[in-house]
Amino acid sequence: MTDEKVRLASVGLGRWARVLARAAQRGSVIELSSCFSRDEAKREAFRDEFRVPRAASSYEELLADDEIEGVLITTPNDTHRNVIVRALEAGKAAYVDKPIAHTLEDAIAIEEAVRTSGQTFAVGHSARRLAGHREIKRWYKEGLLGDVSLVEANFSNERGLELDENAWRFYASKSPGGSLIQLGVHHIDNLQFLLGPVESVNANVKKLHTRAEVPDAAMVICQFEGGVLGYLGSGWASPGVYTMSVLGTKANLFYDVDFTHWDESHLADKYSVLRSQFYGQSERRTVELGSSDMFREQLEEFGLAIRGEATVEVGAAEAVGALAVVRAALESSERRGARVAVGEVVEAARGSSAA
Amino acid sequence: MTDEKVRLASVGLGRWARVLARAAQRGSVIELSSCFSRDEAKREAFRDEFRVPRAASSYEELLADDEIEGVLITTPNDTHRNVIVRALEAGKAAYVDKPIAHTLEDAIAIEEAVRTSGQTFAVGHSARRLAGHREIKRWYKEGLLGDVSLVEANFSNERGLELDENAWRFYASKSPGGSLIQLGVHHIDNLQFLLGPVESVNANVKKLHTRAEVPDAAMVICQFEGGVLGYLGSGWASPGVYTMSVLGTKANLFYDVDFTHWDESHLADKYSVLRSQFYGQSERRTVELGSSDMFREQLEEFGLAIRGEATVEVGAAEAVGALAVVRAALESSERRGARVAVGEVVEAARGSSAA
Repeated sequence: MTDEKVRLASVGLGRWARVLARAAQRGSVIELSSCFSRDEAKREAFRDEFRVPRAASSYEELLADDEIEGVLITTPNDTHRNVIVRALEAGKAAYVDKPIAHTLEDAIAIEEAVRTSGQTFAVGHSARRLAGHREIKRWYKEGLLGDVSLVEANFSNERGLELDENAWRFYASKSPGGSLIQLGVHHIDNLQFLLGPVESVNANVKKLHTRAEVPDAAMVICQFEGGVLGYLGSGWASPGVYTMSVLGTKANLFYDVDFTHWDESHLADKYSVLRSQFYGQSERRTVELGSSDMFREQLEEFGLAIRGEATVEVGAAEAVGALAVVRAALESSERRGARVAVGEVVEAARGSSAA
Repeated sequence: MTDEKVRLASVGLGRWARVLARAAQRGSVIELSSCFSRDEAKREAFRDEFRVPRAASSYEELLADDEIEGVLITTPNDTHRNVIVRALEAGKAAYVDKPIAHTLEDAIAIEEAVRTSGQTFAVGHSARRLAGHREIKRWYKEGLLGDVSLVEANFSNERGLELDENAWRFYASKSPGGSLIQLGVHHIDNLQFLLGPVESVNANVKKLHTRAEVPDAAMVICQFEGGVLGYLGSGWASPGVYTMSVLGTKANLFYDVDFTHWDESHLADKYSVLRSQFYGQSERRTVELGSSDMFREQLEEFGLAIRGEATVEVGAAEAVGALAVVRAALESSERRGARVAVGEVVEAARGSSAA
């Protein structure tokens, strides 16, 4: 490992920036060297809490700071493109929280900026790093599940019930898709990590019980290349749920994570359970899981990748792929659930980006 | 209660007839007075096992037996219409296992024969009688769940992997829809029992891993009147799964039944668990359940209804309603998952029945 810590700066200093800062400071790879928010009080509070040596008074100032090797971006989704592209063009590496952007056009523009800049870029699709998802993937790859037919996932919580006009997630222009783009996109990445690309979707996405402009109930059927069927449910109007079931000819796996401890990612595995059920048996047995620290691990991987000592697992391609499934699902829902090919949605967005 | 036992006859003496006979004999309402199968050895074995006083050597003979008040039909799905209609026309009450028929046209013809005959008729959508489903319904009705947005159900087992050409379920002409019509139809009834009629569906139904002609993997998104979304997964190529999750603004419920003990329905509740999760909490608590005996209860209700001392809970209307959702899902899947209105499928079938 590199002798000198990787010097990063936090940009957008809300709740999630603090979760990531705590994760980075659990390790010894990253040093938070600076930070920026337009809100001065937030900057000072963040500096104090995380002992950050300095804060920039403008984003320009931050990007002009030669000490800074990369930025950790947790600004609202609709600002990602501008904030990321400026960082890349200033010669900084960029880490951004999921989703990569609020529109596929922005996501593709970011992907293009990553390509032309040659900078390190990572997206926080962290959930696939949970010990349970890694174990499910191992069972799948090693054939312990046999032939898989149905995979079902749900990620829901009560956030939609708490949104008001002060929250950017309230607005369709900033967070189109509601729970589907904020929560569901995690499981889309998990599903594609497990099974490969989603080929097409049928979806029904509705606004039922929350005041926000955005949907709070989504059901998506995914058809994977090869024919396996995947289901994603995602709501914003219930107590928190995070589950995945995988049904195979030799065995089933059932994964259940207590979302309450999500933010403290070094503890998340302790509040999760993976159970197996084998062919010819009704009994379900708990599968022993290792422990992970998804936020720390992804940030350290990003930091080491800047130094050429690691490879980013989730970059622009994977993140565009996850967002594309969200966009395809929303388009399907607008067309009364008609099947939408994910590749066509991406091609259309590339066409309009190029135009 | 009636002093004299209700005299019924079993028709079609396979595995399921024996499950029902054991259920009837756990109670004191029903007397199995006769039985019929085309296979004489099966008739004799059934008489012996259940101490049935006589066996008919033809269905005509059975129907001409004045002692018999009703028949318990467990013949293959594609024979239901003929066997039921002949019983009704002979002045017998009829109980048939789910699905009511293999096609909606047959189901509607049965419904019409019930109406014109005035006979008692019941369909074995028994699962809604499980203590957990009754408790979920109570929570829903009493508002303990708040506003429900997403309901997810799965009923899958390994049966498809075991089918060969000797089994009627192997053939698309006799069991169109595979696991969806054999297993999924249970949960469709459960969902409609809980939430009211399904308005429309989007579905993807595939044949993936089994030798049989019929599909072994189905995913269906149901939109209920009022907008609530329901999901049904049903496969025939994995160890057994029977689950239902209900997500509401005030609470979630998670129901899990160990299907291994399904046949012994007086034990089924003991091998099931219902858990609740309230708003603002991650903890899930086990909900205490009463005990039921779904097969015995439905048969006794049928018997007492013949005597005018009970009302049939699941008759032709409910069973046609459940099959209609299966048919709408299969049609949706053939049309690449396009939304299909259940009412239109029923109307079309009524039109072709009337023509």
